[in-house]
Amino acid sequence: MNELLFPYERLLSFTTTVFRKIGCPEKDAHTAATALLSADLRGIDSHGVARLTGYLRLWEAKRANATPAIRIIHETPSTAVVDGDGGLGLVVAPFAMQIAIEKAKQVGTGWVSVQHSNHFGIAGYHALQAVQQDMIGIAMTNASALVAPTFSLERMLGTNPICVAVPAGEEPPFVADLATTTAANGKLEILQRKNEQAPIGWIQDKQGKSSTDPHELKAGGALLPLGGDREHGSHKGYALGAIVDIFSAVLSGANYGPWVPPFPAYVPMPVGMPGKGIGHFFGAMRIDAFRPADEFKEHMDKWIRRFRSATPIEGQEKVLIPGDPEREMEAERREKGIPLLPSVVEDLKGLATKLSLEFPA
Amino acid sequence: MNELLFPYERLLSFTTTVFRKIGCPEKDAHTAATALLSADLRGIDSHGVARLTGYLRLWEAKRANATPAIRIIHETPSTAVVDGDGGLGLVVAPFAMQIAIEKAKQVGTGWVSVQHSNHFGIAGYHALQAVQQDMIGIAMTNASALVAPTFSLERMLGTNPICVAVPAGEEPPFVADLATTTAANGKLEILQRKNEQAPIGWIQDKQGKSSTDPHELKAGGALLPLGGDREHGSHKGYALGAIVDIFSAVLSGANYGPWVPPFPAYVPMPVGMPGKGIGHFFGAMRIDAFRPADEFKEHMDKWIRRFRSATPIEGQEKVLIPGDPEREMEAERREKGIPLLPSVVEDLKGLATKLSLEFPA
Repeated sequence: MNELLFPYERLLSFTTTVFRKIGCPEKDAHTAATALLSADLRGIDSHGVARLTGYLRLWEAKRANATPAIRIIHETPSTAVVDGDGGLGLVVAPFAMQIAIEKAKQVGTGWVSVQHSNHFGIAGYHALQAVQQDMIGIAMTNASALVAPTFSLERMLGTNPICVAVPAGEEPPFVADLATTTAANGKLEILQRKNEQAPIGWIQDKQGKSSTDPHELKAGGALLPLGGDREHGSHKGYALGAIVDIFSAVLSGANYGPWVPPFPAYVPMPVGMPGKGIGHFFGAMRIDAFRPADEFKEHMDKWIRRFRSATPIEGQEKVLIPGDPEREMEAERREKGIPLLPSVVEDLKGLATKLSLEFPA
Repeated sequence: MNELLFPYERLLSFTTTVFRKIGCPEKDAHTAATALLSADLRGIDSHGVARLTGYLRLWEAKRANATPAIRIIHETPSTAVVDGDGGLGLVVAPFAMQIAIEKAKQVGTGWVSVQHSNHFGIAGYHALQAVQQDMIGIAMTNASALVAPTFSLERMLGTNPICVAVPAGEEPPFVADLATTTAANGKLEILQRKNEQAPIGWIQDKQGKSSTDPHELKAGGALLPLGGDREHGSHKGYALGAIVDIFSAVLSGANYGPWVPPFPAYVPMPVGMPGKGIGHFFGAMRIDAFRPADEFKEHMDKWIRRFRSATPIEGQEKVLIPGDPEREMEAERREKGIPLLPSVVEDLKGLATKLSLEFPA
């Protein structure tokens, strides 16, 4: 598809400037750009700079606040609820994760539920902040409803990702970052663009029948929870997505279920919203609140090495550790640059013109 | 299959007496019996009284300690590590969950990782202890390796269940209790007994090929992680099972991966075990550490009612809330009794004779 390569630093600089242009304070603009581009670095292209124009449209529609007064509205020694004041999730989430980390320093663990936020990029970026402090990091968010629970015709949940990141010693960290659906929405978008069929178990059509046509999603169909159907455990994927929704929004006072605000600014807001904005949930657990960090890391290394050396099925190269593919991608892209589709480049050029900027920077 | 019905109270009394007979203190015997039989009440027959002889064999083989000195070996205000001293998980787990609850009372949340324990019955029983205190309860455990990670020929993980239980107001609690595999091992056992085929995506054979023969599991095959195969997200089920393993065992100092001790006492212990016994992990989060409990419960009621009233797919009765099937089962079984297979009854009669007891009590 003739992708063009852009150095990470140039995309970061451009993205930071764009966030500055809409009024974000310098520090917030840099935070937001770093969080957003971590998706491109890790190979989750659907959630990276390709979404920059989407964030801008949210701001234009007054659905995102460039100068939020983010604050704690309730707390205990190990918990807090943060009001994001309608800010970019890319700014609100790092603020909230930092509180979780500070609480973990004080009392062993910290848990922060967030209301009145917006899309936060990839969960992995936020969870990894804790790993740098010898903590296990946990991040999750709800999102607008695209997923039909088991037996449901209606879309009731977002793809509601969960990330758990665990530090190791000599080995790189274990980073499980997963949408609670069979396939992330980004993968469907790729199939839509290529006009290819999806595997059974990814989507249902508007009658609730299993479908392989990725366009059904935009024709009233739905994504399916991890598991696909009841016989293959979709009630478990549904339950996991529900847990993310409850921790992120019912605990914080954000919107949940079918009331979560949409990312595309042209989609009307849900009627009868029971809360404020989108919700997130973050956790940080200090390793040495359980056992000496060195001891833990030695065992994590042993865990990782044992799993990596598990006998693979014939025809498969090896057993992977969660986080391996994204880390390899990041190493490659930091060196060679980030590939963008021509349509994304056009989009960014349009944005640059509108804001009197140059793209590439 | 000619199941016989037994009143819950009589099974509880019999089971308590059995645990007394092997030397458990009165209180522990009652705790263990209550935890074990909660599986029968909730319809998870594979984990209930049918396993009583299995627990006894662990004790006979000196792999379970009837009089453990369970103790905290490390703690912070919000965390603890518990050494189960080789006790029955049915006794160790309630002890550890109680610590999580006490810590949550003090600082908002409590998180307890457990080493040197044994099988704890169903995760749901333990998580629900927190719900009675207006807390969200979390329980998980690792178990001996039956599951092959994505691309692995080797079994590396147990069915590693996770339970998250959330209190509501007028509605019953939300209780998601799920093995991180496509299908729980108990379901395979039923198919094995009936000589029926399993759906694709539940198991692989000893070459790592997808299989529908449930007997393959005992012939060198493996259970598959939730998702079934890579295309359907098995790397996510693998990651979830891995998280349970790490939280339960790498944090606590228990055994992990392929080194987790087996439940059947005749299976040799793994060689080169890196820790002590089996590991669990528990969490308790006080609702009002986030927002007023009444407010939270009102929104949980709204969440539950909205999901329950989602339009079902034609031919399906309704969308269920996690915990609905087990709760309906419990109501029925408390009234009508608990059905046991003739083979289980024979097993329990044999046990009664051996211990000079009567069955039924």
